[in-house]
Amino acid sequence: MTKKVAVILSGCGHQDGTEIREAVVTLLELDRRDANVRCFAPDTPQAGVVNHLNGDEMDEQRNVIVESARIARGEIKPLSSLNVDDFDALVMPGGFGAAKNLSDVAFKGADATVAPDLKTVIHDFIDARKPIGAICIAPAVLAAALKGKLQATVTIGDDVDGLIAGLGAVHQYSDTENCIVDEEHKIVTCSAYMRDDRLKNVAEGIRKTIEQVLQLV
Amino acid sequence: MTKKVAVILSGCGHQDGTEIREAVVTLLELDRRDANVRCFAPDTPQAGVVNHLNGDEMDEQRNVIVESARIARGEIKPLSSLNVDDFDALVMPGGFGAAKNLSDVAFKGADATVAPDLKTVIHDFIDARKPIGAICIAPAVLAAALKGKLQATVTIGDDVDGLIAGLGAVHQYSDTENCIVDEEHKIVTCSAYMRDDRLKNVAEGIRKTIEQVLQLV
Repeated sequence: MTKKVAVILSGCGHQDGTEIREAVVTLLELDRRDANVRCFAPDTPQAGVVNHLNGDEMDEQRNVIVESARIARGEIKPLSSLNVDDFDALVMPGGFGAAKNLSDVAFKGADATVAPDLKTVIHDFIDARKPIGAICIAPAVLAAALKGKLQATVTIGDDVDGLIAGLGAVHQYSDTENCIVDEEHKIVTCSAYMRDDRLKNVAEGIRKTIEQVLQLV
Repeated sequence: MTKKVAVILSGCGHQDGTEIREAVVTLLELDRRDANVRCFAPDTPQAGVVNHLNGDEMDEQRNVIVESARIARGEIKPLSSLNVDDFDALVMPGGFGAAKNLSDVAFKGADATVAPDLKTVIHDFIDARKPIGAICIAPAVLAAALKGKLQATVTIGDDVDGLIAGLGAVHQYSDTENCIVDEEHKIVTCSAYMRDDRLKNVAEGIRKTIEQVLQLV
């Protein structure tokens, strides 16, 4: 039976949106396993626009779903329309977009809150016992959404600043090319570009994450 | 010995820049084979900006290298600084950026010309007998650059409109998951998203293209 997977994007470019390479490898590994994929993103303004050549903030306004559509090739729906009943699993690639546009983790760290639409979606998947995969900084967003509900075990590689612990979750170390599985809560995480690692290692961690997420369905 | 490969980007998003997925799979397959990769893009305004959610032209100005840096994670140099002596091979992913920002193939078809910097680079690689890989619509840009110099054999999948023949090259049919090798000129091409095919098939065609390009070094 075809497994239906929702992928949540947060823009296009790791400094102000989705980490592009993480998103593409996620979509590729899902397609290789014949998953039926739908992309979603919030129809909201980006928290900012960053010049990825020099790191400067740009005096521009861009919209999260419009920029996410560059990765999704136009096949993307507003996050507000995501219904847990239509899917078997949820995957969230990383990039600063997750920490700036889907939550305020980039600005408030352990005091972060999560966009209400996304928090509802995450709680719905947890309550339905449907697996969630989170990549790079997205595990911190997941932890923020679940604070006070349950204590997930996740990885962002090394939790050097105690961000994950501060968000009320348990951090487990992981190499880039591996993932951490929280069987109890059906949560699979990998660190990806939290380290400035080689693309092939980032891709291997995501490959294992997707494999585990689909096995948990 | 580590093979050094230059990858030419043309923006970020298939409707006005590089096809993102093709670029990421290209970079991944090069990294898996331990190639030393450098990305390049022209430091010029984009021919246009397209809303990838609805296909409309947007009233914005963006710069090709600045947007390409989203895919390259900031590790990118101006195309004008690309010196053939520093590299063993050249790879050009597709997307409308190749046909709008690197050439005017999207506007003039068989009468297209190629940005002077890129034409020089392509001729330099050909003259040095160093292999060139071209993906999706980029084989048409390559054909335009080589018009009058040599008659390459390339694929864009099906050449239904006779674009490749019009540009003075020979077209050879290819499935998405395969590539065409012109051994005489050390040119390897695949069709990728010229067809609205599955990502796994696009990735397989690019994997074979990169494999063949590196074998021809």
